[in-house]
Amino acid sequence: MTAVTARAHTNIALVKYWGKADPNLMLPQTSSLSLTLDQFYTDTTVEFDPRLTHDMVRINAQLLAAPASQKVVDFLNIVREQSGQSAFAHVTSVNHVPTAAGLASSASAFAAMAGAASRAAGLELTPRALSRLARRGSGSATRSIYGGFVEWQAGSDDHTSLAIPLQETVDWPIAVVALVLDPHHKRISSRQGMQSSVTTSPYYPAWKTVVAQDLATIKPAILHQDFSTMGEVLESNAMRMHALTLSAQPPYSYFNGDTLRAMDTVRVLRQAGQECYYTLDAGPNLKVFCQTPDLPTITQKFAEQFGAEHVIVAHPGPGLRFLS
Amino acid sequence: MTAVTARAHTNIALVKYWGKADPNLMLPQTSSLSLTLDQFYTDTTVEFDPRLTHDMVRINAQLLAAPASQKVVDFLNIVREQSGQSAFAHVTSVNHVPTAAGLASSASAFAAMAGAASRAAGLELTPRALSRLARRGSGSATRSIYGGFVEWQAGSDDHTSLAIPLQETVDWPIAVVALVLDPHHKRISSRQGMQSSVTTSPYYPAWKTVVAQDLATIKPAILHQDFSTMGEVLESNAMRMHALTLSAQPPYSYFNGDTLRAMDTVRVLRQAGQECYYTLDAGPNLKVFCQTPDLPTITQKFAEQFGAEHVIVAHPGPGLRFLS
Repeated sequence: MTAVTARAHTNIALVKYWGKADPNLMLPQTSSLSLTLDQFYTDTTVEFDPRLTHDMVRINAQLLAAPASQKVVDFLNIVREQSGQSAFAHVTSVNHVPTAAGLASSASAFAAMAGAASRAAGLELTPRALSRLARRGSGSATRSIYGGFVEWQAGSDDHTSLAIPLQETVDWPIAVVALVLDPHHKRISSRQGMQSSVTTSPYYPAWKTVVAQDLATIKPAILHQDFSTMGEVLESNAMRMHALTLSAQPPYSYFNGDTLRAMDTVRVLRQAGQECYYTLDAGPNLKVFCQTPDLPTITQKFAEQFGAEHVIVAHPGPGLRFLS
Repeated sequence: MTAVTARAHTNIALVKYWGKADPNLMLPQTSSLSLTLDQFYTDTTVEFDPRLTHDMVRINAQLLAAPASQKVVDFLNIVREQSGQSAFAHVTSVNHVPTAAGLASSASAFAAMAGAASRAAGLELTPRALSRLARRGSGSATRSIYGGFVEWQAGSDDHTSLAIPLQETVDWPIAVVALVLDPHHKRISSRQGMQSSVTTSPYYPAWKTVVAQDLATIKPAILHQDFSTMGEVLESNAMRMHALTLSAQPPYSYFNGDTLRAMDTVRVLRQAGQECYYTLDAGPNLKVFCQTPDLPTITQKFAEQFGAEHVIVAHPGPGLRFLS
């Protein structure tokens, strides 16, 4: 059989995915919008092999035993079902995402897996079909099939829930400064957090309206390169997502003291004329959007405050591609 | 003229007041519920004096000039209007509330002021009328007219918005451990914060439903001494109030790193069997409710973590009384 290697980059959501409508099909409660980044990616090789008696999954040179490999095996089962390929597979995946950067490696991982596994199984899928397939592995992977700004349209079933590019090639000098502040494993996973928000936050119904309004505002802002509007929307969207965690029963938070200090730094930088806006996902680490002329001042400020080794700069990145 | 001295204690809200419906009459968006505390109080003496050419306001031995005295002068004008008393007044007020304890001294201050000023002006007001009057000075003062557990009924106008006691004498061994963690003046006042939440948070309409449900749950829990239910409601109510600050535009937070660490400590204590629940208002300091058998372990834990000098224990306290 042929080994196929695919590379996909991670993405950072400007309008968040927070809540599943169908946990089996990974249908989301709302649409979402992201920027694919250039710095963080996963290379995955898949080869189906009739001699195997079970799937062999190596991630970062570590052979995974069950149950750790179960998510990958489940995903391969979907590919086998779609392709008619019945053999088990060798999967070798290497994440080029700094440990605990707060930049979900599952997005790049399952996007690369969707590409490599489908082609290795003999399928030639369109990007839309790859996006649908990646969704089954991880919601945010749906968007990493495309480069640049990408919208995941919630849809209503397996067929209609997929990403479409808003602007694949970003001709706009913007950057994302990732602060890597806390290497600890988070106490509440995204999956648990989303579920808790959907089922217990009294604010969840209003969140769905927030997302619809934010998407309607941010898409033209991106296309018109209106940085202020884009920034205000992405920051308030993130905080309204985190308000769902505080308002869940029991309440919880992904913030720590560094999170709050970094938020203050963003505010101080803005007051000093360096326009920047933060977002954060199900973890304590801020990702700060800025325009490249402001990048030196902003990175220096964060390096002074948190140490240069905790500051990583990323730019808009490309979609899925095949390396072999 | 006669000098009258009144003493009122501060209170801590279990179901929060967060948002005005009428800023002039201080009518709230929702009802709220509090416990009056024994540790923190204000003594206020008022004497009307025809020889004065303006009101003389001394707080903690400091003579206030305009505009610092304006809130007190405005309040005295309401008393003069109600009483027909036309003289200016000497006001001497001493707050026995530790600086920045996060226990609003305005609650005890305006409750004591309402008592002393109305009686000095010749009015003999019922507790209900005193509660309505105190409301004009500060929303939370409405509740400090009564001891124990008190509900401020939102009402719909000046006449109907007032506190009523739920249980004035608390025959239940409970305590509130106040952590005094941050002496800094807060960046966003309660007044600004409330206004911002009411006008910009998409979750505010749902907050009003939350409060109605929380009141319906917590009142029987208090009367039946069901500590777990009371605790769960007061903690989730506080977090849902703070979710309104994160979801405002622009977003803001009253939390700091110590706030998050103290929340974690409460969680750890609960897991270890010491049942306790926290609340916090428009500032970073936690107030932790517990039952007195657990008090030694809980205070020791917080003393170890933050220093014994930052830990103050309070119990249910009395309503307004006249000292002369």
